Amino acid sequence: MNQTIESLLSHRSIRKFNNQPISDEQRNVILDCARAASTSSFIQCTSVIRVVDQEKRRLLAEYAGGQPYVAEAAEFFVWCADFNRHLQIKPDAKLGFAEQTLIGAIDGALAAQNALAAAESLGLGGVYIGGLRNNPEKVSELLGLPMNVIPLFGLCLGHPAQNPEVKPRLPSSLYVHEDTYQLMDVDTLATYDQTIREYYRTRTGGNKEMSWSDQISGTLNKEARPFMKAFLESKGFSTR
Amino acid sequence: MNQTIESLLSHRSIRKFNNQPISDEQRNVILDCARAASTSSFIQCTSVIRVVDQEKRRLLAEYAGGQPYVAEAAEFFVWCADFNRHLQIKPDAKLGFAEQTLIGAIDGALAAQNALAAAESLGLGGVYIGGLRNNPEKVSELLGLPMNVIPLFGLCLGHPAQNPEVKPRLPSSLYVHEDTYQLMDVDTLATYDQTIREYYRTRTGGNKEMSWSDQISGTLNKEARPFMKAFLESKGFSTR
Repeated sequence: MNQTIESLLSHRSIRKFNNQPISDEQRNVILDCARAASTSSFIQCTSVIRVVDQEKRRLLAEYAGGQPYVAEAAEFFVWCADFNRHLQIKPDAKLGFAEQTLIGAIDGALAAQNALAAAESLGLGGVYIGGLRNNPEKVSELLGLPMNVIPLFGLCLGHPAQNPEVKPRLPSSLYVHEDTYQLMDVDTLATYDQTIREYYRTRTGGNKEMSWSDQISGTLNKEARPFMKAFLESKGFSTR
Repeated sequence: MNQTIESLLSHRSIRKFNNQPISDEQRNVILDCARAASTSSFIQCTSVIRVVDQEKRRLLAEYAGGQPYVAEAAEFFVWCADFNRHLQIKPDAKLGFAEQTLIGAIDGALAAQNALAAAESLGLGGVYIGGLRNNPEKVSELLGLPMNVIPLFGLCLGHPAQNPEVKPRLPSSLYVHEDTYQLMDVDTLATYDQTIREYYRTRTGGNKEMSWSDQISGTLNKEARPFMKAFLESKGFSTR
């Protein structure tokens, strides 16, 4: 056990922040850690939009489905997959492959997770904002994203003003397979479902009782942002 | 500066390992860190295949385009986007959305980056193997991946037997935008191109001289795994 591992294991999303800013020095080192992440074949297809403008923050909070911490956090970053940079270098670059969408999403997430890990190691907290993908076109327009750039998710960072408990994750035996994929063991899943039911009960003072299976069933009973395919294609991603 | 940040900033991919194994305790804590990562709406759509079988390792090294460290590293993990788990819970789950492909790639990468960060904090080293996507169908078959599961990338981990220098990344001013996306400053890019040319020259004893722009132009002159779209669709991803 060391500082890094302790910090990673104690991760929980922070959605309430006090007013203290993040220093320039801290912000720079956080973003340096992001840049230091691995990148597929050195393609470097990640861009970050740091959003300082208060009106843009307010709109992004709204676009994300009404998440006020997007406006309130000390820092808000929008992580993008960016192949426009490559187009600036090579105007006839072969783009639009589904493979490149994967690379963009993977490389962006590797970088962002370094940023969050660095921030948390400094005593800061944060939360990813996948909700930006509720309105990807509006987000793109607001931030002036050109073709071949898409917003992947946001990241709020700031000084925590809450201390939620760590949310229990799927047990290792359902997450890690050895040599061959295994279907879930139903008893292990049932035990985990009970753990999550307890977690919500204690956290909400009995107002929410829901197993992980209940939650999944609810989520996957609805269509998942069915406009995303058309959005990606409109920006020159996953067209081939 | 702290241990976590020092470790993240000094990342470089390690492709040569000595024979020392990673202890069960270390492996477990590394995978616990992976499981602790954020997950979109608590969907938990990541699975990891730990590959122990030597023949499977040998084949994966081959499928990845001949990367011997896939067979040689102390541990080799295949990170997957996994929505089959959800199908086991809810057989009529609404799947196949491009949005879910993004979630799968992002969540998988967040988790894997935690694993790599934890491993590096323990003095271990590693390298991502995107090359698994050269043969995603063969990888899937070898590991028994069912529908709605796709291999994203591999991760080699082990005790380093090399000490390469850190590879210079795009400067912050080309990576971080403020409020609005900015096109690249050509002078900054030219300076960076020179940095990379020097990096390759000194690293290869003068045998390779290539700027980042040269490298990008070469990479994007070729089609990027043009079979990926059909592969994703065949596994029930990005069909709508």
